[in-house]
Amino acid sequence: MNIKLNTDEHFKKSNISKIKSFRKRNPSTSALISGIADGDIAALSRAITLIESSNENHRSQAQEIIDHCLPLSGQSVRIGITGVPGVGKSTFIEAFGSTLTKLGKKVAVLAIDPTSTISKGSILGDKTRMQELVRDPNAFIRPSPAGSSLGGVTRKTRESIVLCEAAGYDIILVETVGVGQSETAVHGMVDFFLLLKLAGAGDELQGIKRGIMEMADLIVINKADGENLKQAKQAKVEFSRALHLYPPKKNGWITKVLSCSATEHTGISEIWEQIKIYVADNKRKGTFQENRKEQNKYWLLQTIDDLLKQEFYQDKKIRAHLEDMTQEVVQGKLSPFAAAERLMVLFKEK
Amino acid sequence: MNIKLNTDEHFKKSNISKIKSFRKRNPSTSALISGIADGDIAALSRAITLIESSNENHRSQAQEIIDHCLPLSGQSVRIGITGVPGVGKSTFIEAFGSTLTKLGKKVAVLAIDPTSTISKGSILGDKTRMQELVRDPNAFIRPSPAGSSLGGVTRKTRESIVLCEAAGYDIILVETVGVGQSETAVHGMVDFFLLLKLAGAGDELQGIKRGIMEMADLIVINKADGENLKQAKQAKVEFSRALHLYPPKKNGWITKVLSCSATEHTGISEIWEQIKIYVADNKRKGTFQENRKEQNKYWLLQTIDDLLKQEFYQDKKIRAHLEDMTQEVVQGKLSPFAAAERLMVLFKEK
Repeated sequence: MNIKLNTDEHFKKSNISKIKSFRKRNPSTSALISGIADGDIAALSRAITLIESSNENHRSQAQEIIDHCLPLSGQSVRIGITGVPGVGKSTFIEAFGSTLTKLGKKVAVLAIDPTSTISKGSILGDKTRMQELVRDPNAFIRPSPAGSSLGGVTRKTRESIVLCEAAGYDIILVETVGVGQSETAVHGMVDFFLLLKLAGAGDELQGIKRGIMEMADLIVINKADGENLKQAKQAKVEFSRALHLYPPKKNGWITKVLSCSATEHTGISEIWEQIKIYVADNKRKGTFQENRKEQNKYWLLQTIDDLLKQEFYQDKKIRAHLEDMTQEVVQGKLSPFAAAERLMVLFKEK
Repeated sequence: MNIKLNTDEHFKKSNISKIKSFRKRNPSTSALISGIADGDIAALSRAITLIESSNENHRSQAQEIIDHCLPLSGQSVRIGITGVPGVGKSTFIEAFGSTLTKLGKKVAVLAIDPTSTISKGSILGDKTRMQELVRDPNAFIRPSPAGSSLGGVTRKTRESIVLCEAAGYDIILVETVGVGQSETAVHGMVDFFLLLKLAGAGDELQGIKRGIMEMADLIVINKADGENLKQAKQAKVEFSRALHLYPPKKNGWITKVLSCSATEHTGISEIWEQIKIYVADNKRKGTFQENRKEQNKYWLLQTIDDLLKQEFYQDKKIRAHLEDMTQEVVQGKLSPFAAAERLMVLFKEK
């Protein structure tokens, strides 16, 4: 869905007053829905705040908004971006996002960082690192939602994608830190997964969790500039060779390696070209749509699983016995299977 | 636990009559337990059959046996062996197992193959492929248990490990086919994970699931003989280079690449040497014991998860609505989270 942006002065003024009104009072659900459909950033922000709220009324209001936005969603290209801290994710997103908005795209930047409660929003929290993009009227930036469980944070981000799409964003960038389990979650909600890397004295893989390289649809060696240029070229060759040893993906795609300099804005367009080829190729083969259907199914099963576990582990009787039983199992005194069955009997007693 | 094998004629005779008695009637639980503790193969076989039975009485008898065997278990080295069909797993296990028994080790060979119900025991089912090992008094070979769910098959194999260890087997080899989810399961129940590969014209990775290479503690290029020798050497170099790009494992181990010829019995001892180094190294650092504790905990949580899902998906109301809801979710008409919550409400209604 492409919403044509009206840039005349009158619109600007009316839009500003609208933003203010969304901020001032509690807007109605229907006002938020039509605001989102109109591409209104304040309505979108407010609705995402409802998604992120722990208040029960907010949650049900959010659910209603999502239900109405679902038919308007699904038209974007969802791109996951990961890499260890220091690889230059913010600078890359700034450069990549600006390139896309210059092509007339509307770009939303979301994040998943389950640790952000502790680190107080380590990724995207500091919007000043994206000075250009944050002022871009065609870009929408939202930091990672807070939350203690990955499941909760994931859900909030995935629901935010629906709202951003309904608001007419063509490209959704989902940023994550390449050190935890959040990569699998992000990989399960995007169409394309991009891994940022650094070239350097053998430390280019430090801190990257095992398995992430296999998820990547594209590896980009960042900071390929100045003195790093030679090393970046070498790293490109090495990674290409290593990737050659992997089997091709289910959709037939063979992961590519590119290099770029986010600060010097070189190599950025080539990345977008690759993604366009990937999307066109997979849409033609039907694997793009197929992947999204599988992702929807995956999230249904995953949420059922999460809710079942929540019921179980919050049960008083389970909480009273779990620790002791776990110790017996860990020490090899009780079989894990026998322990699980005993706990299940406890759980089912009413 | 090392059970000294009495090889005099008198013992053999009494042992044979014992085996016959275990086969003929339904032995008591206590007879089976003491039989296993004595290293009696017939008692062990019979007890594993009870583990594999779907009969409720058999299951509870099996549980009692496992509870008694647990204190006797845990002394072996558990080795997972995987590789695509055609890589020569049976021939390798025959050669590797025989090498170990010649060193005075008692070797048990188990298997996990959730597809064996369909393929009628594709792995280990045809014991004739291990002609030498099957006749070896210090080897015990048991095909993959039948079962429709990976969870069930996994559980049976893991419980069988406990019994084999209680029966004095020093080395447990767990075979699996390198094409499905069973590798993760096997990886989660062994101390050492060995991936068999073939050298060859670019097809050395065909059919191997993504992520398996990262699980391996050792990659062995099999069929390194005759005309293959040169290619095997080349593959060894390539894999070593690729592995160099991975981060080291949590326990500090760096995956090695070796080559062997199972048919010509070359390179087999070197594999065992590597495993001994790995075990000694990890026992010294405490990571061997730590890993087993983590595995016990993992299986407890995994089994709880399996049992919860079983309850849910076998529920009549869930079965009545799941398919329709899934379709709505897959088609993007209903959010996966909303669908999961609606189903959960149904499930909790009594």
